[in-house]
Amino acid sequence: MTTTGLDGFSLLDETWRAVTPDAARRMLIAAVQAFAGKGYHATTTRDIASLAGMSPAAVYIHYRSKEELLFNISLVGHETSLALLSSIQGDGAVQRLRNAVAAFAGWHAAFHTTARVVQYELGALSPEHHAEVAELRRQIEQRMRSYIADGIEEGVFDVPDLKGATLAVLSLCIDVARWYQPSGRRTPDEIGAMYADLVLRMVRPAS
Amino acid sequence: MTTTGLDGFSLLDETWRAVTPDAARRMLIAAVQAFAGKGYHATTTRDIASLAGMSPAAVYIHYRSKEELLFNISLVGHETSLALLSSIQGDGAVQRLRNAVAAFAGWHAAFHTTARVVQYELGALSPEHHAEVAELRRQIEQRMRSYIADGIEEGVFDVPDLKGATLAVLSLCIDVARWYQPSGRRTPDEIGAMYADLVLRMVRPAS
Repeated sequence: MTTTGLDGFSLLDETWRAVTPDAARRMLIAAVQAFAGKGYHATTTRDIASLAGMSPAAVYIHYRSKEELLFNISLVGHETSLALLSSIQGDGAVQRLRNAVAAFAGWHAAFHTTARVVQYELGALSPEHHAEVAELRRQIEQRMRSYIADGIEEGVFDVPDLKGATLAVLSLCIDVARWYQPSGRRTPDEIGAMYADLVLRMVRPAS
Repeated sequence: MTTTGLDGFSLLDETWRAVTPDAARRMLIAAVQAFAGKGYHATTTRDIASLAGMSPAAVYIHYRSKEELLFNISLVGHETSLALLSSIQGDGAVQRLRNAVAAFAGWHAAFHTTARVVQYELGALSPEHHAEVAELRRQIEQRMRSYIADGIEEGVFDVPDLKGATLAVLSLCIDVARWYQPSGRRTPDEIGAMYADLVLRMVRPAS
């Protein structure tokens, strides 16, 4: 059983802590709420300012545009989950893939609001910002693939299509953000553990 | 190898064919495009009318509100995928689950635009409409669960947590709508076949 600590939402402060000053952080958090509530395109910077308890003009001191708020949310979201996937420890490929899936799926439950904005509003990023985020997504994909590839090399996993399996594993974890409800019967850590089991079943050899 | 025929998008006309008259159908298809493009909340009935090549007033002849357009899209989307899951044939539980996953995942690739609107804008439905759609979702869940349960009874599947596994299988298929791109290297049928293999690996006994 892995313990990611996501149930305590201990990473929530951590996620936005790096954003300074305070006012800029409050605006990002307000923007996540607003975008999640009615979508990026229907949200105005006035909505965000109001949620953050600031004047509309104050937004522009920290962010040039609504798109720049989205880009910063997307950056923080992707960098946080990449950092999480990059810090996976474990003795052997089975344990590492277990920990990676538990952490990644659990993150998408605990941070489902941020994750939804990050995943569903990608198309609203400017081409330059989209390219920057796409590079982070490649690194996330590459990390997860390496955990599966390690097990193939060790002979403990058997996967006919490594790229396809990696896509499916990431997709399975990301979609947790869509269906997860804090009122549901499973905690983020329980979802993480269950998904880790399911993924390990998927990659195990026929034996 | 299953053949769902989704590559030819042969079901696309089928999906909306039941909607009459022509003008009402054109509006629904225009609404799907508009909602997918900038989200439900940022879309006006004027946008939809314009996409459908009609006057704004014409929309209200067929739909009382923007929400009713969304509800109709959601109904058609859920009814179509429920019908697909209900018509699965196959000799034995392995073949039936293979066909069910191939069809459901393939549908979410072929109809990714409709599926995105249906999945991501659920929160914009009125409480009454939401309840009606939730009932269809329960039936979809129940169908997929029965295909897995059949295999447990036959002794060909081994799943520690039937409800959790069903959730994961549906989630895996639904998320195809998020990442699928028509320009990608896999066709809807290929994605369906690959996902069917991965799911069968997930539910097979340790042997």
